[in-house]
Amino acid sequence: MDGRTAAGRTTDRGRAGGDQGSAADTVQAVGEFALIGRITAGVKYPESVQLGPGDDAAILAAPDGRVVVSTDVLVDGVHFRTDWASPEQIGRRAALAAMADISAMGAVPTGLVVGLSAPADTAVDVVLGIGKGLHDTAAEHGAAVVGGDVTRSPALTLSVTVLGDLRGERPVTRSGARSGDVVALAGRLGWAAAGLTVLSRGFRSPVSLVNAYRVPEPPLAAGPTAAASGATSMIDVSDGLLADLGHVARASGVDIDVRTIALDVNPRLTEVASALGRDALDWVLTGGDDHALVATFPHGATLPPGWQPIGSVTVADPSGPRVTVDGAVREGATGWTHFGSA
Amino acid sequence: MDGRTAAGRTTDRGRAGGDQGSAADTVQAVGEFALIGRITAGVKYPESVQLGPGDDAAILAAPDGRVVVSTDVLVDGVHFRTDWASPEQIGRRAALAAMADISAMGAVPTGLVVGLSAPADTAVDVVLGIGKGLHDTAAEHGAAVVGGDVTRSPALTLSVTVLGDLRGERPVTRSGARSGDVVALAGRLGWAAAGLTVLSRGFRSPVSLVNAYRVPEPPLAAGPTAAASGATSMIDVSDGLLADLGHVARASGVDIDVRTIALDVNPRLTEVASALGRDALDWVLTGGDDHALVATFPHGATLPPGWQPIGSVTVADPSGPRVTVDGAVREGATGWTHFGSA
Repeated sequence: MDGRTAAGRTTDRGRAGGDQGSAADTVQAVGEFALIGRITAGVKYPESVQLGPGDDAAILAAPDGRVVVSTDVLVDGVHFRTDWASPEQIGRRAALAAMADISAMGAVPTGLVVGLSAPADTAVDVVLGIGKGLHDTAAEHGAAVVGGDVTRSPALTLSVTVLGDLRGERPVTRSGARSGDVVALAGRLGWAAAGLTVLSRGFRSPVSLVNAYRVPEPPLAAGPTAAASGATSMIDVSDGLLADLGHVARASGVDIDVRTIALDVNPRLTEVASALGRDALDWVLTGGDDHALVATFPHGATLPPGWQPIGSVTVADPSGPRVTVDGAVREGATGWTHFGSA
Repeated sequence: MDGRTAAGRTTDRGRAGGDQGSAADTVQAVGEFALIGRITAGVKYPESVQLGPGDDAAILAAPDGRVVVSTDVLVDGVHFRTDWASPEQIGRRAALAAMADISAMGAVPTGLVVGLSAPADTAVDVVLGIGKGLHDTAAEHGAAVVGGDVTRSPALTLSVTVLGDLRGERPVTRSGARSGDVVALAGRLGWAAAGLTVLSRGFRSPVSLVNAYRVPEPPLAAGPTAAASGATSMIDVSDGLLADLGHVARASGVDIDVRTIALDVNPRLTEVASALGRDALDWVLTGGDDHALVATFPHGATLPPGWQPIGSVTVADPSGPRVTVDGAVREGATGWTHFGSA
């Protein structure tokens, strides 16, 4: 939460009036502390925030006696593009993606801390917009941004750490899937991938798809619900359904089969895929960024509202755990990793 | 903890053998998941880590019912230079700087999550070294790195979030200093600033100063000790003594006077300052990066071991809270902010 010393820095004397600057100012002109003051101005904190921003650290209530924690980094040009989404949308997306990891453990988000690095000539509006998106989204889900660090960097970068509360429930990990379990899905798949393809081709519509990429709609409430309903494993679909089920299969030592007939391929996806020469099912099976949740439940369990069965868990193949689609290994890409492109 | 979808990415097929690669490999060749596997291989976790890396989120014990949290971002060329410190030193420094914020609340660090972004051609050794520095340093202080995210970026960037435990004690904030309090210091000041000056001039010695910049020695145990001894306010000196006391003065609504005769200006600092045409006292008063702790204690309180008196708290000046040195406002820079240099 403090400023940090920089190799090769110069002082910032005479900038003290920066916090009266106009929105057209750059982050360099306004300065770190005034910027943080403007980001946090007027924010209301829930009771669980015992100490908010402005000190060496924040303090959050953790009445459960455990705290769930996850961190994500989003880099301009790698994970988002400022010409494809507004600053506020970028902030919203970062908060939602981070909170989906907490939901996938069966927990509810309580607090976020955010590292924001930006080139010195970044417009203050960009930073304020991202801050607003983060704050508003956190608040909409009962959490709050309780601290952060703002610094200079060659690339606009957001690092979002989110803390969560298990509320006395057991956590749902990736390793609990058992042969005979049902695989179930909450949320939608393929929409963000379709939106990304649309944007990549230079289009701005259909808006429903483009907006799905800009701001996902992860079913955050479905995570704790699944935990309370006896889910044996759970994961947030960020790398793509097959890739993320692969993580569950390996962690649990099982095979997982997905039945495509059970997957909801929205007609809009099919239509756009057809127009762009792409395969809508491929978006559904391998697209990330929607942050749907996928979980396994014991055979015969009644799935909670919002969850639909999409496959089954079987004993692992002698060659090792694997994910199949309609009983067969699917050729080609199953997801994405981060250093895949230069 | 998941990989994230990238705009404009390509797939990483055929890279599966990357985790057998040699240390000369780049992070792109090895890939995100294998890299995380190599960073976390063989790490032992304390009992307080209920779930370590590898799932959507980690789970830490929080028996106190509260969790302290702070985040710092360090950027290559802004906060560190890979030609001035080894990867392991960079990792150590990042962990120590982050943990100092927890100590400054009176808490002990329990867990860290780390976002590491790097250019695709970064040598794996750099990332593994940083990871080792972070893990080892956390372990030396009873904490652990429990999760992270690794991604591609134009600049090597570390975002370190640290969680801490108040162990039933009240937190010590910046706002509790009262007129009549004694100002006290734990740890050393000016060493890292001297080391930075030495490195900036192209020298590599005196090693004691250069190493003070590379890896600070924050008095982490002194924070909880001060809290237990009735400290009324506390802060981690990261922006410089006068700048950080300024934060305390404003938050508490008091004036603070520092007496230079009480400050330990090591002869080595004086000697090097003289050789370089600099002022050692200036390093002590305005240099950050040593992450000393400064706190206020009630008048007449017995200071705990490791703490020495350096000044006093008085009623705020009618013009507003201020920090003075030997009774006078010091001209010139008092610290650093982050967008001060382009």
